[in-house]
Amino acid sequence: MYIESQKNSKVQLWAGLKTKKGRSSHGSYLAEGARLAEEALQSSRVVESVLVDVAARDDYQSLRSLAVAKGAEVYELSPQAFLSVSDTVTSQGIIAVVRQSDLSPAFPAYTLVLDGVQDPGNVGTLLRTSDAFAVSEVCCSEETADPFSPKVVRASMGGTFRLSIHRMNAASYIRTWTEAHPDGDIIITEADGEIACHEVDFSKPALIVIGSEAAGVSAAVRTLASKRVFIPMTASAESLNAAVAGSIVLYESYRQRH
Amino acid sequence: MYIESQKNSKVQLWAGLKTKKGRSSHGSYLAEGARLAEEALQSSRVVESVLVDVAARDDYQSLRSLAVAKGAEVYELSPQAFLSVSDTVTSQGIIAVVRQSDLSPAFPAYTLVLDGVQDPGNVGTLLRTSDAFAVSEVCCSEETADPFSPKVVRASMGGTFRLSIHRMNAASYIRTWTEAHPDGDIIITEADGEIACHEVDFSKPALIVIGSEAAGVSAAVRTLASKRVFIPMTASAESLNAAVAGSIVLYESYRQRH
Repeated sequence: MYIESQKNSKVQLWAGLKTKKGRSSHGSYLAEGARLAEEALQSSRVVESVLVDVAARDDYQSLRSLAVAKGAEVYELSPQAFLSVSDTVTSQGIIAVVRQSDLSPAFPAYTLVLDGVQDPGNVGTLLRTSDAFAVSEVCCSEETADPFSPKVVRASMGGTFRLSIHRMNAASYIRTWTEAHPDGDIIITEADGEIACHEVDFSKPALIVIGSEAAGVSAAVRTLASKRVFIPMTASAESLNAAVAGSIVLYESYRQRH
Repeated sequence: MYIESQKNSKVQLWAGLKTKKGRSSHGSYLAEGARLAEEALQSSRVVESVLVDVAARDDYQSLRSLAVAKGAEVYELSPQAFLSVSDTVTSQGIIAVVRQSDLSPAFPAYTLVLDGVQDPGNVGTLLRTSDAFAVSEVCCSEETADPFSPKVVRASMGGTFRLSIHRMNAASYIRTWTEAHPDGDIIITEADGEIACHEVDFSKPALIVIGSEAAGVSAAVRTLASKRVFIPMTASAESLNAAVAGSIVLYESYRQRH
């Protein structure tokens, strides 16, 4: 199907998915570029549509076949209509429109809570790391950067499609998780923590919390913590980047269990 | 001293430090914002000048005293002259002009080589992590993003001022390091590496190489490697972010030695 005008109602809906409001009212998000579109199509997610810039129509024969096989609608857009949906400076001419999963949280034994992480690059990197270290579910608090924004989806390198991501109150998620895993640890990372991250016993269920870049974990979450963990480092250094600190704790938990 | 015009020759020189060409011809770089300016002033680096937006002149009395005590010139710039030097969207109205260190490389027992890391955020994050994990010297290859660009300096969170950073050919740096540490390991990280990073013996001297995000380490550097290391992760995941992977190896080396 070919769409010429950027005023077309479908095009306007897709362009709206660049905003948080558009994503939450429509329940889907954009995965731009050949690699992300392919990963979305190969994942278990529902891909509603694949949008191709008509100027690049000959580049994506195999991706289009994949889309058709998965039941996604393929649209060819005029360059200006495509541009209105694209979020990148130099576009590859292909975007997948992916349905947000509507599964309920499963509260698995190893899980990650992002408690106010602000930077989309950090959120995406933490989703990518979670995927690498076998964490299957991530709770993103309302104060955390939207995990379905184009920048987060790009930085997650496809992690978004493979993880079960839930946008909900962090303290509520933690309370329900604790009921499911009464022997589990709620782990927060702090410069003056009481135990080094490599001394934590990760054979027990663990919920790892990453707080905001500037202020750390929220007061409500801090009262729920059972272990305040530090990452050993030199005294002179300020701190680690939030995505790096979280990734090191996730690495430790994975290393110990494998 | 007050400068009104953005055509003033000093202002034009400072504005030129936003470009790689300007930084290499003048040998200094910009550290923007109150926190970075303060860290530069408290470091062992020479701070040539401190630039204050005249509209924010009352906000920085203590930083100005610090600058004067360190022998830096303090300039008040008109808002438009300041804006022409600033690299941020919402400026705090203060910038330190920092002299690049002219020390020669020291080739210490634990060192980091960035071999073509492209993303300024990743380079800055790796400098920040090096600082946290007691790596004092970093070699940035010519293909690596400029470690003195405003974006890298910001992401390093002051690491730039505390590390000895050398922009030079990675293979040359590695060869000289090996002469100084004939029993040391040249460590590269690869998905199909031969040994897990936590199984490496970091009591020996170690030079850790981080390659480019897309292509990994260069062919010239790969032939010099003595250990090809992998980070244990699930088979389904693509890979880790370059800054995260490098940070995990740096963490392992620090953890084992402390």
